[in-house]
Amino acid sequence: MGCGGSKKPAQPKVYDPTPDPITGLTEKDREMIVDSWKIIGSRSAIKQNALEFFLMLFAAYPYVQNYFGIFKNKQLSELRTSPKMRVHAASVFYYINSYVENIEDTETFMGLAEKMAVAHIARGITVEEFEKVRIVYVKFLPTVLGNKCTPSLEAAWDKLLKTQNAVFIMLAEEGSSDGDGSGGAESGSG
Amino acid sequence: MGCGGSKKPAQPKVYDPTPDPITGLTEKDREMIVDSWKIIGSRSAIKQNALEFFLMLFAAYPYVQNYFGIFKNKQLSELRTSPKMRVHAASVFYYINSYVENIEDTETFMGLAEKMAVAHIARGITVEEFEKVRIVYVKFLPTVLGNKCTPSLEAAWDKLLKTQNAVFIMLAEEGSSDGDGSGGAESGSG
Repeated sequence: MGCGGSKKPAQPKVYDPTPDPITGLTEKDREMIVDSWKIIGSRSAIKQNALEFFLMLFAAYPYVQNYFGIFKNKQLSELRTSPKMRVHAASVFYYINSYVENIEDTETFMGLAEKMAVAHIARGITVEEFEKVRIVYVKFLPTVLGNKCTPSLEAAWDKLLKTQNAVFIMLAEEGSSDGDGSGGAESGSG
Repeated sequence: MGCGGSKKPAQPKVYDPTPDPITGLTEKDREMIVDSWKIIGSRSAIKQNALEFFLMLFAAYPYVQNYFGIFKNKQLSELRTSPKMRVHAASVFYYINSYVENIEDTETFMGLAEKMAVAHIARGITVEEFEKVRIVYVKFLPTVLGNKCTPSLEAAWDKLLKTQNAVFIMLAEEGSSDGDGSGGAESGSG
């Protein structure tokens, strides 16, 4: 008003900088995760992206592949066309989808991370493997997102996966200290 | 053309009546499942719907509740506000979401059903419990969908869950015949 003819640029969105007290994710982090997931987890691409992620993981850390009896000692080229590999990879990315869907609902997000941890601890998987997943996932982001991938986006996803892994460590320690390695989200005492 | 003024009704969509050879779902079945899931599994309602479904399941078959160590002998009113109950229910409905996302990709759908079966067989759950889930899920549909729920929609979902349960029976029989009840999708021989 009173400035006829001058076009003001749209006001940049002001984000609440307060990190979530449990996940550490800020409003901007959460928005970046949700936006990037629209590409990574899009209905048409999620299964192929999931497969490429697992091939990257196994290429970087071949020992992780050997945790999967059915994938042990197989060539990556063989896994690329394996229906079992596609299904396992897809199921993991559908689980990440449930994280993203609950990025604003910390209680559910933490509960889902707990279920993921309990199921894997029961199979003898340790936080070392989950750390490999985190490291490779961050490297995988630019392969899908290209120039839409920024350091702050990588940092946001890293924070999410670090939170998941913190839950893992906590539960693994509880399991080893109470001497009950039986696992099973439904048989827990919580 | 040549019929000025008369409005023709839109042509009803013609569906391919051929059932998928593995799931038995027709094109119309799949469309009905996807359309109804937009309501049942909508982002804003999925967690509440999941909770209501589990409360219905436990009300109808209290013994199923006792398969969950952490829910055993609890009042339904207590479970309604339990964060663990909400998370477990949500994770099941997010898994159903992955079925719906793959309703046109039978190979992935069957692979996801297999993973679901293997994980539950490993915990000592039998097809009897999965049959209870199927029966209650079909009864749950009208409570969410109201007059959008039709007998043919119920039949479509029933077919989907029967297919899942057929996978369960097949794997449970394989497990008992080869004497290896260890389970674990990743340790299987397939």
